[in-house]
Formats: sequence, structure tokens, C-alpha cells
Amino acid sequence: MNAAELMETATQSGLERLGREEFVVGVDLGGTKILAAIIGSNGKIVSRFKAMTRADKSAEEVIGRIADCVSESIKKANLDRTQVRAIGIGAPGVIDSNTGVVIYAPNLRWTDVALKAALENQSEIPVTVDNDVNLGTLGEQALGAGRGVDNLVGIFVGTGIGGGIILNGKLFYGANRTAGEIGHVILKPDGPKCSCGNRGCLEALASRTAISRHVQKAITKQGKKSILPELNGGSLDLVRSRALAKAVERGDKVTLKAIQRAQYYLGVGVATVTGIVNPQVVVLGGGLIEAMGKDFVAGVYNVAAELALPNAMNGVDVLSAELGDDAGVIGAAVLACENLGSA
Amino acid sequence: MNAAELMETATQSGLERLGREEFVVGVDLGGTKILAAIIGSNGKIVSRFKAMTRADKSAEEVIGRIADCVSESIKKANLDRTQVRAIGIGAPGVIDSNTGVVIYAPNLRWTDVALKAALENQSEIPVTVDNDVNLGTLGEQALGAGRGVDNLVGIFVGTGIGGGIILNGKLFYGANRTAGEIGHVILKPDGPKCSCGNRGCLEALASRTAISRHVQKAITKQGKKSILPELNGGSLDLVRSRALAKAVERGDKVTLKAIQRAQYYLGVGVATVTGIVNPQVVVLGGGLIEAMGKDFVAGVYNVAAELALPNAMNGVDVLSAELGDDAGVIGAAVLACENLGSA
Repeated sequence: MNAAELMETATQSGLERLGREEFVVGVDLGGTKILAAIIGSNGKIVSRFKAMTRADKSAEEVIGRIADCVSESIKKANLDRTQVRAIGIGAPGVIDSNTGVVIYAPNLRWTDVALKAALENQSEIPVTVDNDVNLGTLGEQALGAGRGVDNLVGIFVGTGIGGGIILNGKLFYGANRTAGEIGHVILKPDGPKCSCGNRGCLEALASRTAISRHVQKAITKQGKKSILPELNGGSLDLVRSRALAKAVERGDKVTLKAIQRAQYYLGVGVATVTGIVNPQVVVLGGGLIEAMGKDFVAGVYNVAAELALPNAMNGVDVLSAELGDDAGVIGAAVLACENLGSA
Repeated sequence: MNAAELMETATQSGLERLGREEFVVGVDLGGTKILAAIIGSNGKIVSRFKAMTRADKSAEEVIGRIADCVSESIKKANLDRTQVRAIGIGAPGVIDSNTGVVIYAPNLRWTDVALKAALENQSEIPVTVDNDVNLGTLGEQALGAGRGVDNLVGIFVGTGIGGGIILNGKLFYGANRTAGEIGHVILKPDGPKCSCGNRGCLEALASRTAISRHVQKAITKQGKKSILPELNGGSLDLVRSRALAKAVERGDKVTLKAIQRAQYYLGVGVATVTGIVNPQVVVLGGGLIEAMGKDFVAGVYNVAAELALPNAMNGVDVLSAELGDDAGVIGAAVLACENLGSA
């Protein structure tokens, strides 16, 4: 996108509420890394700062590191602190975005951490907190693949599968803030065990973990041969998306089959979510999708179109995410800016 | 409910917009019958009138019969035509509720019928048209099991399975007006064929048709014995809910097993819809649910609670519909009244 296009889309993102010399900070708080980015009214990232999370330390220390990342990103952008209107943070877990409390985040080992209050205390800037996948979805809707679309579902495929739903232009949370948990929709009640304890969830059928498990099984139980372990540093634990893409590129049949199976179940998942909320666009993102490319996404669409009710997929697009790792910080900035408007 | 309770709930239904001497007509247009009911500001049905649909005749004739039903129900209530502010109609099929056109309704043999325009022409009263299951869901939300709840899913089990979704207090339609088609969510990709052409849809696993097919199979393929055919007039075609209930009551194991299977898949469906939109209440309605009673619904809840993510079902109720066949006409009246307010 060029600057003119960014200006145009920013008009719909809410970031245009910012003055020319005003900025927001988007933070993506992960289990291993913290990414902070300064974003202006045109949706452009002005500066970034990365640090390790060190989730093994106390929540106070981690929050201190977030505050440092924010300060460093402001410094890097040569801004005065008064030019920063708000901070938005995406965290991996169940978040009460009204209070800014992280209710439960296993990757961070956090339970009931008042992130908003603590960070506002340290930074003296208004803070908004939400689930990281929700914010990735919001980022794609504001400035990525779903620009200009009011009803959108985001599905992000990595070691797990996360999802977010935007209805009528707003993130939709549901009664217990668990709406959009598309990774744990059960597509095959007698299917493989999922990390959540159930069987046959989308995550257990189509995540990177599910794919590597499938390859592992083919090797050990069916005696098939695959170059995937070799491409992944000798092991199938924590298989990397790039290794999967390389194995497919080199014609590894076992990996290809496992990936086609994941593609099929992602298609079933898209059909399911389309049957229930019938969004205009489904955005597929995350490492696996990026590594596999457009053809993989087109295949997911085809499965969904075949399985959805007649008409349900008419005009519904299944698109690759466009913002990559920036989706989270952009979504965080957008939501922080929205809350600024309503405060 | 007593009159005082009705008055109280009507405060939230939108019907309170009506004056004391003002009324709306709710119409449930089915493939075999038309039901019209006069409803006042307190949500009470003042009069009803029923007629056969005669879907084999032309759309014009059917619309004429709807107009007659409306006139007769007004007459029966001793009202003057000027006291009727609006007509709401629920029709079985895909409806464009903005234009009041029935796009496709196989049970009526209708394609692109401008029902709103034609009936307004004949009746000179503003007409609102929507899908019958959507309106049944709205009726239950306004005055039935979902009173006072803003986020609700309705699942109606009969020969097929229909669904409706209310989000933030409004019917939710989605991009192609196919949101809420819970009957065609695929729960078992290798499951039995569904009327829609796919396999393993909720409808193919848990509708009355699915149950009777399962019993049929047990009898013919596995040589099992069942009293269900006898209780259903000698045949398993179009099995009635009452026959199913009687067979269970008399301890018919084959029927019981088929019904438990339907109950299990309804539970999977409730878990699925909860994972995606996380409503506060799921209302189960339709002939089968009414005939099987509260224990059946409690069993559906238990399956869903076991399969849903931790927290997702916290405080979420799965309730039996309360309005029976009146849900549709009440929902039609409520929506007609809402549109009156916004016109």
C-alpha cells in the first residue's frame, strides 16, 4: 500500500481521530516476545521496539518490560511523551477488556493480572487491553485484508488456532468473552485429542501441531518415509511452518497429505462459521498460512464453498491476512484509539 | 405468566410502543397452514384465525388467503381496521426483510415473491416479512424463554432443524442473510446425507427425520424390534413427535437410542454455536423438544457443557421454548412493531 491508500483506509480505521502530531502505541504481548510499535493517524508504523517477555519472572517485572518497550519505541520515533494519546495491548488469553484485567493467560502464567491499571500507573497514558487474536482480527479489518468490511471472521493458524469475530464493525465478545473460539469448534467428535481436553476440535485437526502429529503417526505407525524431520532440525517437535513449506516444495507426500487434511478441516471450519454468522470475509492468517501461500487459501475456500449451504458463500471471500506480525500491534492501536473516542 | 408479568416483559419487547387501543397482526405462513393473531401492547394474543395455505395454488391466491386471515382475526377481536398499526409475517425460506421479498421458499413453491408489496396493496397496513425461524427466535426472546436476554440463539427441531440468532438485541442476518443456519452446520463430515446435499449436518443427525431414519435402519439392517412404527400408524414416514415420546415412555430401546443420539448431536451443536457466538441463552424449541420435555433439554446442556471450552458455558442457559406454536406470530408482531418505530 502506498501512503495515499493508507490515508484512505485510515479514514475507516478510527485512527483518523488522531491529530497530525498525535500517535498511539500498539503492543503485542506474547509468551516469548513483546513488540511495541508507534502508529500515527495514517496507519503507518513509525517505530518499533522488541524485547523478550521473560514470562518466568513476576507479572510486575513483565509489566515493567512492557513500559520500557513503550518508552523505547517513543524515543526511537523522536516523539515527546505528550504526543502519545493511548496504549493498546494484545495479550494471549482470556481478557476482560472492560476492566483491562488478564483473567487467564497460560503462556504468561498469569491469573487475574490488572494489566491496564498497572501500566497506566507507570506510563500515565490511557491503556486498552484485549485478546491478541481479537486484535489481530481487528488489525486485518482496519488496515489489512478486511478493509471496509463490517462483518468479518479471523482465523489464525499456528501451533494452535485462534479466532476473532467482528460484527457490525465491532469486536464481538459474547456472554463469557469466549466468542470466536473457532479453534475449539468440534468438527469430528471421534477425532484426535485436543489441548483443551476434547476431541476433534479444529485446532486438533488443522494446527501446525496437528499436522506434525499426523506426519509423526504416518512415520512411526505406518512406516512411511518423510523428509520433514530432517528439514526441521531432526525432530518433529515444534515443527516450523517454513519446514512444512519446504517439505511440500520438495514433493514430500506424507507432509503434503497432512497439509491437505488440515486444509480440508479449515474448509469445514470456514463453512461452519459461515453457517452461523455468515460474515462477508474470512481472513486466514498465522505462520502456516503465510508459508503455504494463496493456493492453500484458495483450497480452503473451495472446501467451504462445497460444504456451505447454497447461497451462504455467495460473495463471501476467504482471504490471506496481509499484515503478518504487525496485525496485532495495528489492531491494538486501533482499539486504543476507538476507546479514546468513547472516553 | 399473569397479566402483570406480561406487562412487565412487554416493556422490553417493543410492543409497548403501541397505544392501549392499538394492535398488530402476527402471521405465521407455513407450507400447510396460515395462522394470524392479533396482539396488543401487553403481548397478549387477543384473537386468532387459521386457514389452509393451499401452496399448490398461485402466490396471488395464497396472499389473498393471508389477507383474509388478517381480516378475520381483526373481526374476531371486534377491532376497527384503523386500530391495526402493522402486520408482521414469518415465511419458511430465504427472505429479504429489507424489501419484504420471499427470495426462495420451497415449501410454498415460491421464488422472488414480493409479499410485502402485494399484501400492503390489499390491506393498506404496513407489512414486515422475515424468516419464520428468525421470528420464532425473536418471539422467544421478546416474551418467551429468552426474556430480557440480548444475545440468544434459537434452535427449532422438527422434520428439519432451523435456527435464529439475536445479537445485541437484534436479529442477526449476516452477509447473505443465511446467518443462524445451525441445522446445516456440519458436525460429522462422514455422517449421514442431509437434505441440503452435504453429509453430517446437525439436521441429518438430530431432526425428527434423522431419528426415524435411525430407527428404520436398526429395524431393517440390524433386525432390531421397535414399537415405533405401530405407534406411528404403521409407518416410519413423517414420524410424529408424540409417537416418539410414547415409544420412549413405553421403554422402546431402539427409539430411545436414536433419541439419545439426537440429543448428543444437539449438544455438540450447542457447543459449536457457543464457541462461535457465545450467547447468554440457547432456546430449544419445536415439536420434538416439546414432546421430550425438560430432561431431554437438560441432557443437551450436559453434552454441550462437557464439550465447550472451559468457561464458555458458565452462566449460559439452555432452555426449552415457552411459547410453542405462538412464538412465530409473537415474533412477527414484535418485529412489525420495531419497524413501525423506525419508519
